[in-house]
Amino acid sequence: MLRVLVYNEFRHEKDPNCRASEIYPEGIHSAIAAFLSKEADISVRTVTLETIGEITRETLRETDVIIWWGHMAHDEVPEEIAALVQEEVLNGMGAVFLHSGHKSKPFMRLMGTSCSLIWRESDDLERIWVSAPGHPIAQGLEAYFELPGEETYGEPFGIPSPDETVFVGWFTGGEAFRSGCTWQRGNGKVFYFQPGHETYPTYKDANVQRVILNAVRWAAPVCRISDCMACPNPPKAHKTGFGA
Amino acid sequence: MLRVLVYNEFRHEKDPNCRASEIYPEGIHSAIAAFLSKEADISVRTVTLETIGEITRETLRETDVIIWWGHMAHDEVPEEIAALVQEEVLNGMGAVFLHSGHKSKPFMRLMGTSCSLIWRESDDLERIWVSAPGHPIAQGLEAYFELPGEETYGEPFGIPSPDETVFVGWFTGGEAFRSGCTWQRGNGKVFYFQPGHETYPTYKDANVQRVILNAVRWAAPVCRISDCMACPNPPKAHKTGFGA
Amino acid sequence: MLRVLVYNEFRHEKDPNCRASEIYPEGIHSAIAAFLSKEADISVRTVTLETIGEITRETLRETDVIIWWGHMAHDEVPEEIAALVQEEVLNGMGAVFLHSGHKSKPFMRLMGTSCSLIWRESDDLERIWVSAPGHPIAQGLEAYFELPGEETYGEPFGIPSPDETVFVGWFTGGEAFRSGCTWQRGNGKVFYFQPGHETYPTYKDANVQRVILNAVRWAAPVCRISDCMACPNPPKAHKTGFGA
Amino acid sequence: MLRVLVYNEFRHEKDPNCRASEIYPEGIHSAIAAFLSKEADISVRTVTLETIGEITRETLRETDVIIWWGHMAHDEVPEEIAALVQEEVLNGMGAVFLHSGHKSKPFMRLMGTSCSLIWRESDDLERIWVSAPGHPIAQGLEAYFELPGEETYGEPFGIPSPDETVFVGWFTGGEAFRSGCTWQRGNGKVFYFQPGHETYPTYKDANVQRVILNAVRWAAPVCRISDCMACPNPPKAHKTGFGA
Repeated sequence: MLRVLVYNEFRHEKDPNCRASEIYPEGIHSAIAAFLSKEADISVRTVTLETIGEITRETLRETDVIIWWGHMAHDEVPEEIAALVQEEVLNGMGAVFLHSGHKSKPFMRLMGTSCSLIWRESDDLERIWVSAPGHPIAQGLEAYFELPGEETYGEPFGIPSPDETVFVGWFTGGEAFRSGCTWQRGNGKVFYFQPGHETYPTYKDANVQRVILNAVRWAAPVCRISDCMACPNPPKAHKTGFGA
Repeated sequence: MLRVLVYNEFRHEKDPNCRASEIYPEGIHSAIAAFLSKEADISVRTVTLETIGEITRETLRETDVIIWWGHMAHDEVPEEIAALVQEEVLNGMGAVFLHSGHKSKPFMRLMGTSCSLIWRESDDLERIWVSAPGHPIAQGLEAYFELPGEETYGEPFGIPSPDETVFVGWFTGGEAFRSGCTWQRGNGKVFYFQPGHETYPTYKDANVQRVILNAVRWAAPVCRISDCMACPNPPKAHKTGFGA
Repeated sequence: MLRVLVYNEFRHEKDPNCRASEIYPEGIHSAIAAFLSKEADISVRTVTLETIGEITRETLRETDVIIWWGHMAHDEVPEEIAALVQEEVLNGMGAVFLHSGHKSKPFMRLMGTSCSLIWRESDDLERIWVSAPGHPIAQGLEAYFELPGEETYGEPFGIPSPDETVFVGWFTGGEAFRSGCTWQRGNGKVFYFQPGHETYPTYKDANVQRVILNAVRWAAPVCRISDCMACPNPPKAHKTGFGA
Repeated sequence: MLRVLVYNEFRHEKDPNCRASEIYPEGIHSAIAAFLSKEADISVRTVTLETIGEITRETLRETDVIIWWGHMAHDEVPEEIAALVQEEVLNGMGAVFLHSGHKSKPFMRLMGTSCSLIWRESDDLERIWVSAPGHPIAQGLEAYFELPGEETYGEPFGIPSPDETVFVGWFTGGEAFRSGCTWQRGNGKVFYFQPGHETYPTYKDANVQRVILNAVRWAAPVCRISDCMACPNPPKAHKTGFGA
């Protein structure tokens, strides 16, 4: 089983004045958990800012891939939890950061850069081009797919040069953006995916769901330091590789 | 002095049925030479497909940066000359490939990949975003600049992941493209810059000229293997580094 | 089944004055095929310089990963076959280049650089350090392993910066070398692995065998352009991605 | 003038039981300042852990390149100062991290990874190979240089894949290490250089001095966000690029 942990701060959806409350009454995490859970080999657990204390070393050691959605409450994520997530990624846990997660603490720690970008809220249509058609995360997609409405993100995106740029986004209003990027960090794989503003039903889109599902499978660890002791042939290299 | 060699196949401009003949009656190479020559520390030499035999080892050893424009006659460039250009880049010569130069022999040799892309001719306006605002090639530019008409290029662009993506292009017709990319290859620096279709006066645009000028200064070699013997402290590393 | 094609020029082994004739009487390709064939899910085909005409588009389309060993007869490999191998890697076939394959035509085409290095034949012991302990190619290894005798390779290695440096080699005589490197090229994965001089029984070493087996599994394509038409959900992106 | 700020924690050198007190009675920072100050176009300022409060936003805005040496007291560097250094690197300040600075707070923030390595203290001789002979940081060096004694560092080195690996170190005891690595981070250039244990006179070595001098010139900013307002042609891109 591939064990996925979905973190969502779950604030916008509780605000009756925000469209998110209609689109995702149970929260973005529930919407993501719903489509991932349909896969026979995937088990999903969710956690929100309110229950963020559940993100412990133990929880993360039982997690193959973490998915992170946060926006207005990045600052309320405890520094120790951000550090834990970073460490476990370095130990091999996969991580998928969605949309405004570009400014989340764990992502910024893993990148080391500003992670800034330019943005507008204006109901732009977005067309997402596959720029790496052979990448596992792009499997099953056409040359591009469209989202009728999304928040507009634009360059410059303050990231280290990605290992691979899997998607490039185009917006009707005139912006372009590296919308899907991968990085290896320690033993762990990191993927950033731009779509998913809370006021649009982005996570109900079949193509977006396919990308996230592909990304989960791609980011799952080949080998995890915490699993080494249970391994029939525990590689000593791992014991000295990190944390030393 | 910074010694620049501009190669242009010079075919479209001689075709009276092509708009290029009106825009660049003296050829694209002359237009590029004209603005570069205004710089006090730059000397420019030009060569066309007709005179391509002038590209010899000797010529290239007296060249700091080569600029390459080709399109309909890539195949007519002799394989040995493509190999020479590749070798001298590896030895330290800078190289700037313009527009349809993405399918030129020297660029394809240096990349090792398909260098394919998708394209349309449809008078799209292009907006070119600076995605690496601190890069020397982007100095003096605003957040973006526009070209009222350009051939449309789009992803996927079949290149090795660039060291840095300096520009991302946006087209009115719905495409997006990594329009400015850098790679280190051996001792040499390589820059690809997408604008410059022959039927638009792109090389008369002040921003485009600034990018090309910046790129020439950026790509100029710090150290060139062929210059080593004249160096007061010839580094032995260079003698064994390449060509061995 | 994972379909592996092993190319070996098979010259040194036929020279009765060369130690290779004793170590690998059936050729290096046979030694590699022998240990790979023990895997239930791997089928191996071999080809030598004498039968190199068997490397056709059709053969390569039925190959998931090609392994390449060549040395004294790189020049005899027809240019069209080198081009075919390059193209099929760009289309998704994996490629593992061994030892002196650093100067083989397909590797040099895929890299675009000199691929030069420094070398000595002096019976150095080599210690190969795992520099990326989480990488699939390093699974099951200790922190390092040793080869009692190997040809000495040293930096500078004239390659594009690797995506990942999986191994760093240390030699008793004083050299160090990036001994295992990966690159993505188009849809295909490329791995270079330094050990394997013909006068040592390197391919009989259990650790070397594990690395090559790991590399084959790692390099196997997720998706292959030539398979697209048979795919239940053929991604249109692939049709436009390469060769266009 | 190129303005360099040298930070050294200055602890080992004050311990009369440590060899550092004999080798660097005035501190490692003074030794580095001494050779850099000989350059007509370089001005040097030094700061130690005791005076670390001098590292303010204002000081850093007047610094082109910071050099960082720390070891036993990484933890005593205030988090806010580490954050300031990180931010100003992202804004364009160059940074050279020496030896045990691999575990310093600013370096770890910029990398986002464990930055771990293996090490031994055993008077190994180190031979440092130039692996990128065309790189500005390697100019004027031979193929390799040696240090008769150094602390031994070894792989795996827990860093993001370097943009360029400029040096590879070889140690008599059997270790090998990526001893000189570069990364672009935001607008700033980062260089890590492994030699420099406090118990050896490494910073008095002519080759080491040349590397550090080369690195300072290489890391100096082309353009600095804080300088933009004073620039005759202030690029608006910079205002939106970072910190937004």
